[in-house]
Amino acid sequence: MKVSGEWRRSIELVEDSRGIRILDQTLLPHAVVWRDLEDLESAAEAIETMRVRGAPLIGATAACGVWLALKRDSEAGALETACARLLATRPTAVNLRWAVERMHHALVDLSGPDLAEAAWREASAIVEEDARSNREIGRHAMGLLAEAKARKAGQGPLQVMTHCNAGWLACVDWGTALSGVYLAHEAGMDLHVWVSETRPRSQGAALTAWELGEHGVPHTVVSDNAAGHLMQRGLVDLCLVGADRVSAAGDAANKIGTYLKALAAREHDLPFYVAAPCSTIDWTIRDGIAGIPIERRDAREITHVVGATDDGRREEVRIVPAASPARNDAFDVTPARFVTALVTERGAVDASETGLSSLRS
Amino acid sequence: MKVSGEWRRSIELVEDSRGIRILDQTLLPHAVVWRDLEDLESAAEAIETMRVRGAPLIGATAACGVWLALKRDSEAGALETACARLLATRPTAVNLRWAVERMHHALVDLSGPDLAEAAWREASAIVEEDARSNREIGRHAMGLLAEAKARKAGQGPLQVMTHCNAGWLACVDWGTALSGVYLAHEAGMDLHVWVSETRPRSQGAALTAWELGEHGVPHTVVSDNAAGHLMQRGLVDLCLVGADRVSAAGDAANKIGTYLKALAAREHDLPFYVAAPCSTIDWTIRDGIAGIPIERRDAREITHVVGATDDGRREEVRIVPAASPARNDAFDVTPARFVTALVTERGAVDASETGLSSLRS
Repeated sequence: MKVSGEWRRSIELVEDSRGIRILDQTLLPHAVVWRDLEDLESAAEAIETMRVRGAPLIGATAACGVWLALKRDSEAGALETACARLLATRPTAVNLRWAVERMHHALVDLSGPDLAEAAWREASAIVEEDARSNREIGRHAMGLLAEAKARKAGQGPLQVMTHCNAGWLACVDWGTALSGVYLAHEAGMDLHVWVSETRPRSQGAALTAWELGEHGVPHTVVSDNAAGHLMQRGLVDLCLVGADRVSAAGDAANKIGTYLKALAAREHDLPFYVAAPCSTIDWTIRDGIAGIPIERRDAREITHVVGATDDGRREEVRIVPAASPARNDAFDVTPARFVTALVTERGAVDASETGLSSLRS
Repeated sequence: MKVSGEWRRSIELVEDSRGIRILDQTLLPHAVVWRDLEDLESAAEAIETMRVRGAPLIGATAACGVWLALKRDSEAGALETACARLLATRPTAVNLRWAVERMHHALVDLSGPDLAEAAWREASAIVEEDARSNREIGRHAMGLLAEAKARKAGQGPLQVMTHCNAGWLACVDWGTALSGVYLAHEAGMDLHVWVSETRPRSQGAALTAWELGEHGVPHTVVSDNAAGHLMQRGLVDLCLVGADRVSAAGDAANKIGTYLKALAAREHDLPFYVAAPCSTIDWTIRDGIAGIPIERRDAREITHVVGATDDGRREEVRIVPAASPARNDAFDVTPARFVTALVTERGAVDASETGLSSLRS
C-alpha cells in the first residue's frame, strides 16, 4: 500500500538487481527506514528482532532468507544450514515453518547454479501468492462493507472498528482485516476506521494508524476501553478484525481484547467479521477455548510502554509500581457464535463447523 | 490506608500543629512525596495540578483551603475571595462546589478570631464525614464479598476485578469500590484483585496497584483488554467499580471501559457491583445514556503515555503517529440492567428507580 504517496510492500523483491528490501517495523511509527537484507544472517536477525512481524511476512522473509543463503553458498549442506537457522528465529510461528519447509521441498533435489535461481523463483512465488491471497480476502470483505454501506443509505461514512494490526504491515501487501478497507477506499467508498490502541504492545496505535494514515484512509485512534461506548452511541457500523488461529468450528483466537469487542458488537446488533487466510484454520481443534493455547508474554509489556519523546528519542517508561505483579495473556478466543462471518481468500463463510467445512480442500 | 506500613490518609489534618498535609499524586507510583499546604494558593494549586484528584478528595482539599485562607486573613471579604479562588480550580467538579458552599454557609455569619476556628472545625468535619461514609460503603460491599466468597466454598482466593482508581487516593480514606476490599482484607479474607490498567490515564496501573500494594492486598495488573478473557477462563468472581455519576434509574457513568467489563460480566453470569456515595446520584436524570454528559478530554492522553525511565526520570512518550487523529471520551455509561447492585453508605440497593428511591432522603 502507499507510503509517502508511493505503492510499497513490507518486503520487496527487486527483480532486476536481485535485492531484498524490508521496512524496519521496530522504528514505526516514528521513523520510516527501509533496510536491504544482504545475507542469511540479516534475514534471520530481521525476524528475531521483529523488524518484520506478522505470520505471513515472517514466512515470506524466511523464504527470502533461504535464497540469500544459497546465492552465496550453493555447496551441499547450505540448504539444511539455512533452514535450521531460520526455523530457530521464532520457533512458534506456524507460517515460518510452512515457508521454510516449502522452500526445502522445492530445492532439496537441486544443486549448482540452478539452486539459487530456483530459490529466487520459489521465494518470489511465496511473496506473490501471499499478496494475491490477501487481495482476495479483501475482495470478499469489500462485498460485506458495501452491503453495510448500502444499509446506511448515505448517512455518513461507513464506520469500521478494528483491533491490533491486521494490515499490510503484517503481510506482504493489503493485509487481512484491512485489505477490504483498502479496496473499498480505492473504490471511492466513504469510510472511517476506529483504530483501537491495542495495549499492551499498542500495534493499533503504532502500526494500523500509521499504515491507514500513509494510504490516506480516514481513521481515529481510541483507547481499547472506548469500544463499548462508541457502539452504544451509534458510532460503529461493524467490526473487522484478523485472527491468529481459527478452530474448525469457527472460534477465533486473536489479539487480547478482541473478545470484548465481539461482546459489545453483539449487544448492539453489529456485524463482527473475522478476516483470515484459510491457512489460519486449525482443523485439529474444534473447541477453540479448550484447544487453542494462549501465549503468555513478558509482563514487562504491561508494566512498561515504548514510545518516542518529543525530541525524537526512543524511550521505555514504567507505568506500574515496581512492586506490583502483572500478567500478560497475549490472545483471547472469541467463540464462533459471536462471529458473523469468517472472511477468507475463498469467500466469506458462516463461522461454524458446516460453514468452515466448505473451505476444506 | 497503609503506606510503608503506616496508616495514612490522602489528606491529613494535624490537630496539634494545625497543619494540612497531602500526598502528591502526580508523582505516584514512582515517588511518595507528602507536601504541606501552607496557604490558599498552595491548596488551589494542588487541586489545579491534580496533586489531589478524585471528587471527594478535591472537596476536602478545597474545604481545607478555605481554612488556610482565613487563618491568615480574617478581614471582611476574605471568605468570598477564598471561595471564588477555589471554585475556579476545576469548574466541573461537583464535590468541589458542594464543599466550598458548605464552608461558606458555615462561616458567612462569623467574623474575627472565631472565623478561622470555625473553618478548621468545618473542614475537619467534611474530612471525617468522607472517611466515615466510605467506610460504610465498604461495610456494605464487604457483605457482598463475603457472600461471593461463601459461594466459592474454599476454592482459592475471591477474585475481584476493578477498573480505574476508586480507592482511598480518590477520597480521604478507604475509597469507594476498594473500601470493601480493604475491610475484607483486614478481616482476613483470602482475596486477589485484578487491576485493569485503565488507559488512557492508566489510573489502575499507577494508583490502584500502588495503594493495594502498599496496604498488602494481593493484586495483579492486566491490560484493559484482558477482562473478557479472564472471565471466560473462570478467573474472576465479581466486578466492583466506582461511579462518577449515577442516574435516578441506576445507570452508572464511570471511567471509559467500565461498560465493556459489565458486558463481559453479564455474559459470564458474574455480579457487577457499583460502589458510590449517595451524593453521586443525580436525581434530575433518569436515562443515563441520554442525560449524563460525557467529558471529552485532550487527545494527547491517547497519543502519549507518561511514566518513569529506568533511571528515574519522568518522561512522556508518543505512541501514535503524529499525523493520526485521536479521540478521548473519558467516561462511558453502563445501563442499570447490567448493574447487580449499587452499594452506598446507606446500603446496597437494586440498580433501579425503585431501588434507588429508598436512598432518597
